Formats: sequence, C-alpha cells, structure tokens
Amino acid sequence: MTLLFSHATVLPMTDSGPRSFAGWVGVVGNRVALVTASEHDAAEFRASHPDLREIDCRGRLVMPGLVNTHCHAAMTLQRSYADDIPLMTWLNDYIWPFESRQTPDEVALGMTLGIVEMLLGGVTSFVDMYYFEDRCVEVAERMGIRAVLGCNYFDSNIGEVLPQVEEAVRLCEAGSGRVRVAVAPHSPYTVSPENLVRGKELADRYGLGLMTHIAETRDEIRIVRERYGCTPVEHLDSLGLLDRRCIGAHCIHVTDSDIGTLAARGVTISHNPQSNMKISSGVAPVEQMRRAGALVTVATDGTCSNNDLDLWEELRTAAFLQKSATGDPTALPAWEALRMATANGARAMGCADGELGVLREGALADLIVVDLQKPHLQPIHDVVSNLVYCGKASDVDTVMVDGRIVVENRRIEGVDLPALYAGAAEAVRRITTAG
Amino acid sequence: MTLLFSHATVLPMTDSGPRSFAGWVGVVGNRVALVTASEHDAAEFRASHPDLREIDCRGRLVMPGLVNTHCHAAMTLQRSYADDIPLMTWLNDYIWPFESRQTPDEVALGMTLGIVEMLLGGVTSFVDMYYFEDRCVEVAERMGIRAVLGCNYFDSNIGEVLPQVEEAVRLCEAGSGRVRVAVAPHSPYTVSPENLVRGKELADRYGLGLMTHIAETRDEIRIVRERYGCTPVEHLDSLGLLDRRCIGAHCIHVTDSDIGTLAARGVTISHNPQSNMKISSGVAPVEQMRRAGALVTVATDGTCSNNDLDLWEELRTAAFLQKSATGDPTALPAWEALRMATANGARAMGCADGELGVLREGALADLIVVDLQKPHLQPIHDVVSNLVYCGKASDVDTVMVDGRIVVENRRIEGVDLPALYAGAAEAVRRITTAG
Repeated sequence: MTLLFSHATVLPMTDSGPRSFAGWVGVVGNRVALVTASEHDAAEFRASHPDLREIDCRGRLVMPGLVNTHCHAAMTLQRSYADDIPLMTWLNDYIWPFESRQTPDEVALGMTLGIVEMLLGGVTSFVDMYYFEDRCVEVAERMGIRAVLGCNYFDSNIGEVLPQVEEAVRLCEAGSGRVRVAVAPHSPYTVSPENLVRGKELADRYGLGLMTHIAETRDEIRIVRERYGCTPVEHLDSLGLLDRRCIGAHCIHVTDSDIGTLAARGVTISHNPQSNMKISSGVAPVEQMRRAGALVTVATDGTCSNNDLDLWEELRTAAFLQKSATGDPTALPAWEALRMATANGARAMGCADGELGVLREGALADLIVVDLQKPHLQPIHDVVSNLVYCGKASDVDTVMVDGRIVVENRRIEGVDLPALYAGAAEAVRRITTAG
Repeated sequence: MTLLFSHATVLPMTDSGPRSFAGWVGVVGNRVALVTASEHDAAEFRASHPDLREIDCRGRLVMPGLVNTHCHAAMTLQRSYADDIPLMTWLNDYIWPFESRQTPDEVALGMTLGIVEMLLGGVTSFVDMYYFEDRCVEVAERMGIRAVLGCNYFDSNIGEVLPQVEEAVRLCEAGSGRVRVAVAPHSPYTVSPENLVRGKELADRYGLGLMTHIAETRDEIRIVRERYGCTPVEHLDSLGLLDRRCIGAHCIHVTDSDIGTLAARGVTISHNPQSNMKISSGVAPVEQMRRAGALVTVATDGTCSNNDLDLWEELRTAAFLQKSATGDPTALPAWEALRMATANGARAMGCADGELGVLREGALADLIVVDLQKPHLQPIHDVVSNLVYCGKASDVDTVMVDGRIVVENRRIEGVDLPALYAGAAEAVRRITTAG
C-alpha cells in the first residue's frame, strides 16, 4: 500500500535535522519512502504513485510509533487483581496461583487485550516476556503489531520452555517477519548459571535476542552477592549473557562499574518507572546511565504492577522521576524521554539503529498520527514538551505498523471489543473460581 | 432539572457502606436526591418525577466529580513555554516576563482553556490562585464549573489586589453561588508578616478562605528561618493564618511538629506530586501527614510545572510517589488516593464535609460518568484500582456540576473549541513578541 500523510506536523525523532516541521510523510510497502517539508517533493511523490491514498493531517502530528521494551501483555487478565499489598503476599497469594491456572488460550486472550490497549495508545512495537509465547505468535501476527516475544523460564520449567522457543521460531519464520522470538531467563537470582548459559546458547544458535530482569530489588542484590560474590550485572557478564542482543529490564540497583559494563556491552536497558514506583523497587539511575553512554529505553512492565500499558505516561514519569530523584529540573529533558520511547527501542526489536523508531526514508513504516486539537495540547509553544508532558494515549488517532493501518480514527481493525471484554471477564471468572 | 442515572456502577466515595454497587443516582435541582442499589427505589423516584430525564449508564460508572485544590488555570497560555531549565532562569527569563505582558482578557482566555481541559477530564471543582481573578469570576460562571478563585498577591501588588478581592466578592454574590473568592498571599517568604495578616483580616471580614504556598522549596525554609527564626508553618501559625479556611499548597519540607500543627488547625493540604517532581521540589510526606490526621487533597498546580490539568494522573502519581519514597508498596492505597481527589476536597471548596465529593442524598450534584468499556479498564477485578491506576481523563464521558450537565458524550457545552485554540495561539503570539 502506498500512502501520503499530508500537511502534518512531522516529528521524525532523528538525531539531526529540525525537530519538527510542517510537511509530508510517504509510505511505500512497509517502508517510509518520503519525509519532507517540500510541497514540490510531495507533489512528485503523488505523481509517481497515482494510486496512493492521501490522509490529510492538518492539525495532527506524524511521528514514529512508540516502542515498549518490557511487558507481560497477557497479564492484562490480572490488571488490578492485587494492589497495595506486600510483594511476597502479592506473588504467593495472587499472581502465582492465578498464573498456574491459566490455559494457553487464556494467555492468548490476555495478550489480545494487551495488544489492543497498546495499539490504541500508539505502541507499534513491544517486547514481551511471559509463558506460552509460542501460542502468542499467532496473536501478534493477527493483530498487526511488531513484537519480540520472550519465552520466560525458571530452573523449574526450562525443560518445557526451551522447546517452545524452537516451536515459536518455526512459527515466526512462517510469518510476516514482524514477530520474533527471544529467550527470556527470568533473572540471575531465579535461574542457575547453567540454565542462563543454556538459554544464551539457544539464543545464539537461532540468532535470537535474550532478555532478563536485572537488579530490580535489593533482595536480588543480596541473593546474588551471597551465591556468587558479585553483582547481578557482573554475574551475567561473567556468563557471557550481556551483549547487543540483550535487554535488561529495570537495572535499578546497579553500581558505577555495572553501568559501565552495560554501556560497554551495548545492552538495551529497559526502564519501567511506574512499575518501579508502584511496587517500591527503587529508582533506576537513568541519568547516570545516559551519561555513561548506555542505551536506555522505556517500558510499561505488566499490568499487575502499573496497571496499564500506556507508554505516554511511562515516558512522562521517567522524566519526572529523574528530575525528582536527582533534584535537578534539567534532568532527562522531554526530547530525551521521547527518544527513549522511540529511536532508542530499535535495537531491542532486533533492528539496526535508524531502521525503527524514526521517520526517515528507508525506515520501517511504523508511525502514529496524534491529534493536536485537544485542550491539553494547546497552545503549542513546544510540540515535544506538549507531547511528553501532556500527551495521552487517547490523543493517538491513527496507527500504522509495517506499512499497514491498524488503527484509524481510534478504531482498531478487526477486533470485536465488547466480545473481547466479555471473554476477559469470563476467563477471569473461571480462573479465580477454579481449583 | 431532574435526572436519573440508571444501571450504573455507582461509586459514592462515602466513608461507610459498600465501595461500589450496581444502582441508580437521582438528581433534583442541584442536589443528589437518590443513591440506591434498589430497583424498587429507582422506580419510585421515576414515578414521583414524571418529567425526569433518564440516562442509561450500562457499562459506565457514576462517581463524584474530582476536586483540584491548587491550580493556576490561566497559565495554560504558558503550557510547555519553558521546560527542563533551572528554576531561576525559568522564572526570570520566561514566566515573569510573560505574565507582565498578559492582559486581563488574555488571562480570562487562558482560564477558559484551563476550565475546558478540567471539565473534559472530570474536574468539577477547582481552587485557583492567580491574577485578575475578578475578571475570571465571569469565566467560571459561564463555564459552569465550581470554583474558588484565589486572588494572588505579593508585597509589591497588595494595594491593587485587595480591592480586586472585594470586587470579585460582589460579582460572586450576584452569581450562581458556584463561584467563590479567596485571598491568596503568594507565600510566607514573598509576603511580609504585615501583609499576610492584612490578607487574613480581609478574608475574615468577608468570610472567605485563604490559600498560600507553604514549604515548597528548601530555599523557602532557609529564607524563613533566617528572617523569622522558625519554619514556614510556625510562622504562618504565629500570625493566625492557619485554620479550617486555609489551603496550604505543597507542604513538602515540613517537620513532624509542622505536620501536627497543620492537622490540629484543620488546614487543607494540597499535594501536587507531578509539579513537585517536575521542578524537583522534593517529596511531600503525605503518608506521615495522613497518619497525623491531616486533611490531604491532590492537585495539578499550573501547566508550567506539570504541564496539564489532569487530576487522574495526579492522584495516580500521588500513590506511586508515596510507594516509591517510603519503600512501602502498601503506602497510599488506591481508595485513599481517590478520596484525596474527591471527598477530601470539600473543605477547600468551602463546603461542609459530606456536601461535596461524595454521592449521598443531599450532597451537591457534582458528578461524572466514566466509560468502563475501554481496553485499559478491562477486566474489572477492582473498579477502584482500575480507576486510580488506569483511569484517564478521556474516560470521562459526561460531567454534571451543580445539577447541570456541562459535558455529555465528551462534548463540552457552549464552547467553540477551534476558536478557543486559535485565540490562545494568537494571544501567545502577541505576548511573546511584545515588548
């Protein structure tokens, strides 16, 4: 499909050139083919693609879709199931019993709901980490989102999960190319060194990414120190897990040396500020990581610890939290927060830098149209500040992934929402009354 | 007007009774006349009010409107005008020059935009603190919102402002009763003791509330200590300013003894978490204040330091920030955060406890209808958690203030939004290119 988004405010999120301008964005197939402020260039594009569809974006902004680098999308079924209680009660009495009763179909249903929420909020790519990801390949393919599905394992279930990885790889290879698999050992304190290495070997064999939770809590630091005499980052590094294919979620309780290691290895750090605040994990030293040259992205985490999948609120909270924690109102400025949610996410999705999360010719056509005609987005002194400090998921009007429009005028294609909500309610009823 | 909201999830926010239930809410004139789970009671209400309008609220929730207890609504014109820069540069180079060039009509325009944003987000009552509030009485009256307009003064302009208070009182007395005036000395470090007392005397003469910023920054603490040898709270208390008619915004850097004083005097504390984070003011000890029995509410502050007027995000951030700062995930639970944004705001609005911010028979009919049929609000394990941790301003569907519907199906009555945005853009252009 060939499309031309016309008369838009264009926010390409590239690291050079003007931050925003009035212009046009053209898409051919699944790639951005034109990003211009020139009416003449737009006319030429129109002339050379006589069958194109043109979308008038007056009063609206076109920018790259958001990239959510850490998520447990199927946990939508547990949204607000257990809040405001201590961590171990939360896990032992609520989360784990619930999860033990879920069927693969229910996980797929939860993921469907999560993807609907993300797409409607302008998230075009996400990194997931959960169970039955092989079952979820089909869901992500059908919904039209770009995804890296991380097959989560502990020591207790590695024997079941690693074969699922291989099955999921086969399913993805038969698919659109939008959906990829990754290997996801839960964390350095819940997976043995041997099983961490087994996962890494499998990832390398298939050319997959690897993701894990790193340094999320003080307890984790203590446990890893007691067992291995080092920090979680040192431990993972000694096992060879840290490289440019690795995503580390949280990275809160890290030393200066850990930060240097994460930067040197090219790990994608996934910062989850609302989750970290809500479950009292601590504050990740994002400003320090950025200064050290580490690649920091932003993410929602699961809906048990947040409780939504709204990346606008996350990137805003990321900025607020750094300003609050450092005592410096210039910390994590708006532009950098928005880069964390767009361009910085490319590597996590297995893309080359500049291939995703930016609007430039040749990049993947994952983009969103934001309606600026909202009272909370007016007037416009600085459109980046407005988006970062005031932008809402509900301001996203139209969403394109891989050159295909999946949301238009806030309607998501091919989903019966009332039936989806009814299905979720029924699944929850079954799970919470089972056993 | 007589209305019946039918088949709703009702969330009365009262301190006893069930938290939520399926039921009906009836309104006669400007008061709530029925809150019931009984179909029989609803039928009787319908029978005794044959001309009532009935609104089917299946899939929707009816709850009290939100109360924003600290705001500078007209500062919408400065939204995103100056972000991510140090405080004194922000004030000296941006905010103050901008404000010095604004006309009263431009302030009224900014307030109109702010009220539109608040009403569309379910804020039915707000406390303002700014210049030219006498000019803004008409705006609040016309827009249909409930307001306390605080006439802000410094030592430098008290001579101009106090007469405006008296003018505003006259305008309010001729109005609907929804709009009230208050006296608003800027802070204990920018207004002399004599001028603080002059303001309090004027407030008492007319039976008005008084509001001021208290203990917002460490600099303020130092200045007050140097000048008066005490804390800002001690200073204000020694001058007789602290009582049940007083609203103290921020109250961040307070001692245990200060907290005891604020609680004992019945001061309404207005907590502004996003502003406090964004401009690095510190973290208010909300949990400690609540334990001491202080009345804590939640607010947006102005759009220069936030940058929107979204009370849903504020109440969520309030909960997140307490959990993060205290290291305790059970701190400021969802229900308490929502109480801060509803029932706790009554006193700030000059109402008796139980007269505003709750749905009970006899309370003022300020209520909102929230659409629960949104992916981020499904499934519903706990509707309060869903609202607090996932609810968005854009989920508010219908808004009633003082028995009158001012927003219905997300359309605000009597406002030409494109003209409003164009007017704001023109005002901003004039102000920033003037002088």
